[in-house]
Amino acid sequence: MMTQDAFCDAARQLLGDRGFTQDPELVDPWLTDWRGRYTGRAIGLASPASTAEVSALVKLCGEYGVPIVPQGGNSGMSGGATPDESGDALVLSLRRMNTITRFDEDAREITCEAGVILQTLHEKVEAHGLRFPLTLGGKGSATIGGLISTNAGGTQVLRHGSMRAQVLGIEAVMADGSVFDSLVPLKKDNRGFDLKQLLIGSEGTLGVVTGATLRLLPALAERAVMWAGLGDIRDARKLLVHAQKQAGDELEGFEVMPKHSLAAVLGHKHGARSPLQGTHEWNALIELGADASDADTLQDRAQALLESAFEAGLVEDATIAMNETQAEEFWMLRDEIAPAERALGPAMQHDISVPVASMADFVADTVPQVEERFPGTRAVAFGHLGDGNVHYHVLAPQGAMPGEWEASDGKVISAYVHDLVTQWGGSISAEHGIGQLKRDELARLGDPVQIAIMQQVKAALDPRGLLNPGKLVPLAPEASTH
Amino acid sequence: MMTQDAFCDAARQLLGDRGFTQDPELVDPWLTDWRGRYTGRAIGLASPASTAEVSALVKLCGEYGVPIVPQGGNSGMSGGATPDESGDALVLSLRRMNTITRFDEDAREITCEAGVILQTLHEKVEAHGLRFPLTLGGKGSATIGGLISTNAGGTQVLRHGSMRAQVLGIEAVMADGSVFDSLVPLKKDNRGFDLKQLLIGSEGTLGVVTGATLRLLPALAERAVMWAGLGDIRDARKLLVHAQKQAGDELEGFEVMPKHSLAAVLGHKHGARSPLQGTHEWNALIELGADASDADTLQDRAQALLESAFEAGLVEDATIAMNETQAEEFWMLRDEIAPAERALGPAMQHDISVPVASMADFVADTVPQVEERFPGTRAVAFGHLGDGNVHYHVLAPQGAMPGEWEASDGKVISAYVHDLVTQWGGSISAEHGIGQLKRDELARLGDPVQIAIMQQVKAALDPRGLLNPGKLVPLAPEASTH
Repeated sequence: MMTQDAFCDAARQLLGDRGFTQDPELVDPWLTDWRGRYTGRAIGLASPASTAEVSALVKLCGEYGVPIVPQGGNSGMSGGATPDESGDALVLSLRRMNTITRFDEDAREITCEAGVILQTLHEKVEAHGLRFPLTLGGKGSATIGGLISTNAGGTQVLRHGSMRAQVLGIEAVMADGSVFDSLVPLKKDNRGFDLKQLLIGSEGTLGVVTGATLRLLPALAERAVMWAGLGDIRDARKLLVHAQKQAGDELEGFEVMPKHSLAAVLGHKHGARSPLQGTHEWNALIELGADASDADTLQDRAQALLESAFEAGLVEDATIAMNETQAEEFWMLRDEIAPAERALGPAMQHDISVPVASMADFVADTVPQVEERFPGTRAVAFGHLGDGNVHYHVLAPQGAMPGEWEASDGKVISAYVHDLVTQWGGSISAEHGIGQLKRDELARLGDPVQIAIMQQVKAALDPRGLLNPGKLVPLAPEASTH
Repeated sequence: MMTQDAFCDAARQLLGDRGFTQDPELVDPWLTDWRGRYTGRAIGLASPASTAEVSALVKLCGEYGVPIVPQGGNSGMSGGATPDESGDALVLSLRRMNTITRFDEDAREITCEAGVILQTLHEKVEAHGLRFPLTLGGKGSATIGGLISTNAGGTQVLRHGSMRAQVLGIEAVMADGSVFDSLVPLKKDNRGFDLKQLLIGSEGTLGVVTGATLRLLPALAERAVMWAGLGDIRDARKLLVHAQKQAGDELEGFEVMPKHSLAAVLGHKHGARSPLQGTHEWNALIELGADASDADTLQDRAQALLESAFEAGLVEDATIAMNETQAEEFWMLRDEIAPAERALGPAMQHDISVPVASMADFVADTVPQVEERFPGTRAVAFGHLGDGNVHYHVLAPQGAMPGEWEASDGKVISAYVHDLVTQWGGSISAEHGIGQLKRDELARLGDPVQIAIMQQVKAALDPRGLLNPGKLVPLAPEASTH
C-alpha cells in the first residue's frame, strides 16, 4: 500500500492533476467494458498529454512494478481494455492525445495521436474530398490507437482490408519506456523485421500505441447498392465470385443475411421495409463504389451484374437502390440485425472466420448440426461473406433464463461452435480480438507452435509482464514438458 | 571435425543422397552470391524434399550446433543467402520443394512450396486468366520462399504492394524444428500477434519459409503505356499526384529517369529509340491497367490524363504507346538503365527510399550536393518515384580504377549517401534487404530502439543463433550500457 501511494504521488507529480486521478467518479466509468461483461479495479487513471509523458509514465510503472492497461475509447468487444479485479493496475487512457499532427492531401496521408476518434478523422478528411476506408459501429468513441491495437475490421474490409492495411507508420512506447518511432511513411522499407506489423493487433501487450500515420483514399463519387434474394447460401458464394469477376476493384461490400435475420429486423425496427416483394432463404447486400472517373456508368454496371447473375440462376430476385436514401435503408437492414436478434432473447454470439471459399459450405453444414445437437436453439449466421467472416449467433430455446443460460448451456454451445470453426481451419476471433474473453479458448484451441512463439515474443519484449497482463497471450504452462 | 563428420552422416541418413551432398561440384555454385560480391564455405548442401524433412534437418542442426543458411534461387542482392568463410554452416536449399499444392481459381488463391520459381508461378496462373502481381528481373531463378524472406519489390509495388501484400498464408520451420503452419488463408483473423508478418522480410533469421498461400488477380485486359518529357523532377512529383487523382486504382506504374540515363540506354542498346523527338531533363514512364470491364475506354483515359497534364504545365511533351510492341519498347528503355549505366564504368549503387512526398525534393537537392562533395562523380537517380524508391547511382570520375575505387572512395560516397537518406527520414534498404551487405550500415544508422527490439525478438526465437547467422540483425554490443 505504501508503495502504491508512493507511485501515485510520483505519477501525479509527473502528469499533473489533469493527467492523473484516483477520483472514483472519474475513474469508475472506465473500469467496465462497454458490453458490461467485465468490471475491474485500478490504482488510478492516467491521461498523459504527450508521447514523452507516456514514456516517462511507463518507466515509472517499471520502477514500481505497476501493471498497465492501455485504453482508447473503451469500445472493445473482448474486455481487452478492462483491468482485472486486483486493483494493482493503472488504466492508461490515450484519449487526451487527440491531435492531428500532419495532413498531406496530395500524398493522401494523415498522422495523428492515438486518442483521435474515428469519426473525427472521417470528418476531417471528408472535408477535403478524401476518405478513410474503415468504419464500424463504435466510430463515435473508438480511437485510432485502439483500432490499431485490435486490428479492427468493419464492413469495408472486402475491398480495403482491415486496420492493418491502413497503417503506414506507427509510434509506440515499449515496456522499458523507449519510444518506437516509425511514423514516417515509407512505402518501401526492407531494414529487417516489420515491427510495426508486430505491434498492430497485439492488444497493448507488447507496447502502447501513441500515434500513427494512415493512408487515405479519394472520396467515392458514387455508389450502387443492390439487394438480392437467394435460394441457398451456396448461391451467395457463387454470386460473390461472379461479382468479383465482373466488378473487380469496385466491389466495396458483400453482406449476407438469412430469412430469419431479415424478419427479425422487420419486426423490430419501426418503418423497416423489405427491398423485395417475396421472401427468400437468403439475402445479399452488395455495394459497388466508383471514383469520379467511372461514376457515370456505375448504375449500368450494377444493372448488368444483376442481370447476368439472374441469367446464371444465382439470384431469385434483385433490385438496385434508386437513390441514396434507399441505399441507406438497405444498409440499415443489415446494421439492425444485431439489436433485432438481441431483442428475441438470449443468444451466444460468435465472431468467427473460415477461408472465404469455405464459408458458404460451413454455414450450410454447421447450422443444422448445431440446431440438432442443442434442441430448441436456432443458429443464425450473417455478415461479411466476402471476408469469410460471419457473426454466428445461437439463440436460446424459448423460456431460457437470461443470464443463467449464457453461463451454463451457452458456454457449452460456444465451445462446440469454436470446435467446429477450428475443424474447418478457421479463427475463433475474426474481428474482435482475444482480450480476456477468449484467452482460455485460444489456449485450448490455438496451435501450440503459434502460442509458444507468442509467449516467447511477449517474454522478450515485456519480460516483467507489465503491459496489459492477462490479455491475449495464453499463459505458459506451469511445468511445460514439450 | 569428428562432430562435423557425424553431422554429415546423420544428414545423409536423413535426406538420402539427393538430399545431402558435400561434392564440391554440386556445392560450390551456391557458395557465391550472383553478383559475385561474397564467397563462403559450407559443411554441405542440404536439399530436403518436404517440410517434414526441413523440420527434422533443423532439429539435427540444433543437436550438432550447425548454423543454417537458407537459400532459394540465390538471386538476392545483399549476400543474405551466402554462408560465411568459416565453413561451419550448412546451406539449406529449398529448390527441390517446388510443388504447387493447391490452386483455387474462384478464390484466386494459390498454395505452393517455397522452392517454386516466380516465372513458373506466373505461367501457371496466366494460363487460367489470372496474374500474380509481382515481378522483377530475377524471375527466372527467384523462388517464392526467397521473395517472402526478403519481402521483394519490383515495378508493380505502386498499385499492388510488395511481396508482403501478396502473402495470404505462410508455413515456416522455426529454430527448434517446430512447424509454424499458417497456410490456410483467412482474410480476417485476430488471434494475436501476426507472426506471418514477422517472418516476411526476416531474411531467414527467424525461421525457414517452406510454403505460402498467395493472392492472385484477374489478368489485365489492356494497358496504356505513356512516356512524358519533363523539365524538372519536381514536375514528375506533381504529375504523379495528378495521375493518381485522375486514374485512381488504374495507375499500375510510374517510373522516372533523368536525361543521362536515357542517353546511356540509347548509346548502349542497339536499336533503342527515344519515344519523344526532343530531349528533356527528366522522363516519366506511366502505365495504366484495366480489367475487362473498363478496357474499351482505357486509351481515352490515358489521352485525357496527358492532355490535362500538358495544360497544367507539368509535361513538356508526351506520347502513348500505339500498340503492345511499342509499350514493350518503352519499358525496355527503363529496364536497360542498370546495364547501360554499368557499361559507363564503376559506380556505387544505392537502393534507397524516402517518403513518396519527399522523393522529388530529395533528388533535386542531393544530386548536386553529392557531385559537389565528390568532384568528378555523377549522381544519377532513376526508378520508382511512385514508391518513393529510386536507384541512386554515383558514377566514378573518369579514370577511376574498377575494383579499387569501389573499395576506397566508393565506400566513403556510400556512407555519405546513406547519411543523407537517414537525414531525410528514409531507408538505406528499400527493396534489397540488409543481408551481410548492409548489416554494419544498419548498425551505424538504424534507430537504436528498433535495433534493440530486433535483437530481443531474434534472441527469443533463435536463442542459439543458428538461423542465418551474421545476416540482417546487428550484433548486440558486447557490453551494452543503455
